[in-house]
Amino acid sequence: MLEVDCTMLTPYEVLKTSGHVDKFSDWMCRDLKTGEIFRADHLVEEVLEARLKGDQEARGLVEDANAAAKDDAEKKKRKKKVKQIKAVKLDDDVVKEYEEILAKIDGYSGPELGELMEKYDIGNPVTGETLESPRAFNLMFETAIGPSGQLKGYLRPETAQGQFLNFNKLLEFNNSKTPFASASIGKSFRNEISPRAGLLRVREFLMAEIEHFVDPLDKSHPKFNEIKDIKLSFLPRDVQEAGSTEPIVKTVGEAVASRMVDNETLGYFIARIYQFLMKIGVDESKLRFRQHMANEMAHYAADCWDGELKTSYGWIECVGCADRSAYDLTVHSKKTKEKLVVRQKLDNPIEVTKWEIDLTKKLFGPKFRKDAPKVESHLLNMSQDDLASKAELLKANGKFTIKVDGVDGEVELDDKLVKIEQRTKVEHVREYVPSVIEPSFGIGRIIYSVFEHSFWNRPEDNARSVLSFPPLVAPTKVLLVPLSNHKDLVPVTTEVAKILRKSQIPFKIDDSGVSIGKRYARNDELGTPFGVTIDFESAKDHSVTLRERDSTKQVRGSVEDVIKAIRDITYNGASWEEGTKDLTPFIAQAEAEAETD
Amino acid sequence: MLEVDCTMLTPYEVLKTSGHVDKFSDWMCRDLKTGEIFRADHLVEEVLEARLKGDQEARGLVEDANAAAKDDAEKKKRKKKVKQIKAVKLDDDVVKEYEEILAKIDGYSGPELGELMEKYDIGNPVTGETLESPRAFNLMFETAIGPSGQLKGYLRPETAQGQFLNFNKLLEFNNSKTPFASASIGKSFRNEISPRAGLLRVREFLMAEIEHFVDPLDKSHPKFNEIKDIKLSFLPRDVQEAGSTEPIVKTVGEAVASRMVDNETLGYFIARIYQFLMKIGVDESKLRFRQHMANEMAHYAADCWDGELKTSYGWIECVGCADRSAYDLTVHSKKTKEKLVVRQKLDNPIEVTKWEIDLTKKLFGPKFRKDAPKVESHLLNMSQDDLASKAELLKANGKFTIKVDGVDGEVELDDKLVKIEQRTKVEHVREYVPSVIEPSFGIGRIIYSVFEHSFWNRPEDNARSVLSFPPLVAPTKVLLVPLSNHKDLVPVTTEVAKILRKSQIPFKIDDSGVSIGKRYARNDELGTPFGVTIDFESAKDHSVTLRERDSTKQVRGSVEDVIKAIRDITYNGASWEEGTKDLTPFIAQAEAEAETD
Repeated sequence: MLEVDCTMLTPYEVLKTSGHVDKFSDWMCRDLKTGEIFRADHLVEEVLEARLKGDQEARGLVEDANAAAKDDAEKKKRKKKVKQIKAVKLDDDVVKEYEEILAKIDGYSGPELGELMEKYDIGNPVTGETLESPRAFNLMFETAIGPSGQLKGYLRPETAQGQFLNFNKLLEFNNSKTPFASASIGKSFRNEISPRAGLLRVREFLMAEIEHFVDPLDKSHPKFNEIKDIKLSFLPRDVQEAGSTEPIVKTVGEAVASRMVDNETLGYFIARIYQFLMKIGVDESKLRFRQHMANEMAHYAADCWDGELKTSYGWIECVGCADRSAYDLTVHSKKTKEKLVVRQKLDNPIEVTKWEIDLTKKLFGPKFRKDAPKVESHLLNMSQDDLASKAELLKANGKFTIKVDGVDGEVELDDKLVKIEQRTKVEHVREYVPSVIEPSFGIGRIIYSVFEHSFWNRPEDNARSVLSFPPLVAPTKVLLVPLSNHKDLVPVTTEVAKILRKSQIPFKIDDSGVSIGKRYARNDELGTPFGVTIDFESAKDHSVTLRERDSTKQVRGSVEDVIKAIRDITYNGASWEEGTKDLTPFIAQAEAEAETD
Repeated sequence: MLEVDCTMLTPYEVLKTSGHVDKFSDWMCRDLKTGEIFRADHLVEEVLEARLKGDQEARGLVEDANAAAKDDAEKKKRKKKVKQIKAVKLDDDVVKEYEEILAKIDGYSGPELGELMEKYDIGNPVTGETLESPRAFNLMFETAIGPSGQLKGYLRPETAQGQFLNFNKLLEFNNSKTPFASASIGKSFRNEISPRAGLLRVREFLMAEIEHFVDPLDKSHPKFNEIKDIKLSFLPRDVQEAGSTEPIVKTVGEAVASRMVDNETLGYFIARIYQFLMKIGVDESKLRFRQHMANEMAHYAADCWDGELKTSYGWIECVGCADRSAYDLTVHSKKTKEKLVVRQKLDNPIEVTKWEIDLTKKLFGPKFRKDAPKVESHLLNMSQDDLASKAELLKANGKFTIKVDGVDGEVELDDKLVKIEQRTKVEHVREYVPSVIEPSFGIGRIIYSVFEHSFWNRPEDNARSVLSFPPLVAPTKVLLVPLSNHKDLVPVTTEVAKILRKSQIPFKIDDSGVSIGKRYARNDELGTPFGVTIDFESAKDHSVTLRERDSTKQVRGSVEDVIKAIRDITYNGASWEEGTKDLTPFIAQAEAEAETD
């Protein structure tokens, strides 16, 4: 993969062409009385969930009302309304209806959301006030580029478009052959209607996107065999449409064989996403791959599976894996008239029959004057279907009319100006627009989920919490702890620090006065996987103790052997047992450890 | 230093407070006839330089006119005008005047630029048309945040503000003690009036900024001794103001001792900037440190030195090193009412006499009603000078009036409402707002300059060009070249590739059919510092040849020894001679090398 860095400021034309100006929207509802703005799907979801949770949840909303309202009269008014709306016992049928809607919540269009809001009387969750019907709100941040203020631009909503615009350069770098991939890591921007939940819904976020370009007639993947036996939780479209959220567990190989996942390349990347998430510390039981429903799919996607991670906020889309087909390259090519294609030399040339149009150019200038280039360009870019129907008209009437962009009225053409014929040729080269498979990672959401999945409390003492980051991921690998402030320990501490620094292992020294147990405990909380303890023995023989965060196991050995163990476990994939097999178990510190004050 | 990542989208209030909304501008001139927009300082600079270069340059502009003009009549008109204006022989006096203006070009205000344009008849360089007077054009990209469209925001013009806003968190991370530093690497945005010159003037650019917070009473630096003997080219303010561009060469120690550079910390970072630039391949003879002139300085800076690099576009500002004093923290603190200070425990408590104000709060509500909080806040935030003068008024008249933000009319206060007294107290803690020393790197400009400084042609063959990137900087360290496509070379090539990959040394294989000389030559052009050649000897005894790009010297040894040499030279600072001292000089390939077709 070739990593590229493209601009965030994007001219209007690019995003108009890609479809984002017209279609990259969420549905918002405005409360005309308070001016509050809600995201329609989230509103329906929240209100129905709140109703399902019953009176107790409703009381929570009353408290919110108290916090939001400005004075006592307003507070009373709001509370009364909340009571009228929320504290409702639900029939069993209604519960079932709500649950089915929630299972499909990502699949509704704006008008459908509006119908749901009307049918179930969903308004402002605080005042109960009826809201405006859902309106599309474009999520892109707009700005003006240059001193004239005339050139409209947007902040990119995804890093993908820059990669598509550079397609021909990327293709050249890859010797003009598919498959190849580019990747980009950078900020994107979406003007969320209601940002919230920490890193989960923000207006500016770090994303990492891979664009893997592949022959649309051959989406097999050479390494598919390496991952085909990986078992994953899938939540395909039909299960959701039936109102269920029960995942189907099967191997990637089975999923592709049954066409639940469309092709090998898509399956391959889903499996690699799984492997990546496992490596950085995601809890396997809190990962599922959910297929987008028809309504939900982005305007460019042919198929899409979201890697969703379960957090205290519910299941969160953290990685998308979409087959964007040839959508983007096709629209950009059409707009710019620049070919964005792969040319494949055919071993066996093929005969191709095609409609072709010839223009009698010398007549175009006199007849169309300044519009001539536009008319010519339009004619030369007509589709095969178009050409076929115009050929028929030409044969029947000796003329036909077309509508040309930027030219007033209809343009008439006759058989003196153009000739349209079907011709058969031998082609030695196949030209195709590649499909794009796009794994797209939301880095902030993934990091947040790893935090939640890594966090636990020691059963023996609930106040002692631990962040079990895998050593590879932990920002600090080693806490260096001299047993006390005694001056005899200073030289050996300095020396070990020097060796760690030279070995490029990120570490911190904690030579504060507090007990060693407390120092361990607060670094467990920060996710530091190893503790290296320096005691009076160390000053004599350069042996140190190595402590593992999760098990609190300790072993002892020479500084060199301990650092080798840290390196093997952190960077070379060794387990604790493998990495420390030559070191001596050590238990003398167990008592000190227990002491946490 | 703690690396931080702050948002690019910045609310209006932040940049209003920092002064960027009012002052972060360039001067632009509009041509009311053509609608063209020029940046005033660049325009004056270009026109005067063009005049100095004389008729020949003027003819170049005529050609530009031809290209820009739409039809023949317009072309003729423009040519005539250009002739009238440009093809002028200059008097010796005028040449001297122009040269002095150019030496000071970065120091003129907008009105001053307007005067120069009038005095020297500088208009549209193509048509000669008179332009509007210079107007301030704010360089920030504006956008609206959130669905209401009401919250104005900007894309950050620098990464610094995010670091200032997080000052209290950074201080806490550093145990509440100065000096400490944060650093940020990320994109910033400036709506340049006329972007140009490749990576040198772009609207979106990567910058790396360090904010080093230091006690304003003690700007010494503990490591100053390590760098004080470094000799640099300085272009101080007074030299430029005298109309000269002749640098002064002295050591950083001398520059600080003579107060040409204000303090040790500023000098320390200037020296470290020099060391960094040398390490990545900047040509020492093309680096100077130029002090900002009074008019040129950013609104926040107390002193500023630019690390300028000489390129084919002239001297380019690539690194700034500013003393922003306490400006930013002070204005943000004042605006947010959040203290942004360091608290230093005093070993010897000191007596401090201060004006203090007491409010009779129970009278404020009845008298000022809803405005009471605003009036109280205003009174409690009055400066010592203000309190002194109000105390005097209170004593003389028993009352005084103030103007309070957000309150209509004047507010009157009497001695029942407030008491103002001078009181003496013993203070055990000194509170101070730290000064900020800010080295700020324009990454794109630096990379561009390194490209230019590294580029040369072999004297023996001008068509063979070389990019002499230092090995540490080169994106690919090694070109792996099997001597031919012979199948006997494949296994050993694969094996060496595997070892390089495991050693994490970036490399590329070139097994194309072209001659080895040509393969070396094209990688010299790409800046790849080492070639490892695999021949039929290699297949027998695992020895390989190592070639150095700049000297084309070659040595031979075992794969392991050659990789060790590459690692020592690339990552451990060894010279070619040191790194290869145990390898055998090799000259058999010299002939092949000469062959470039």
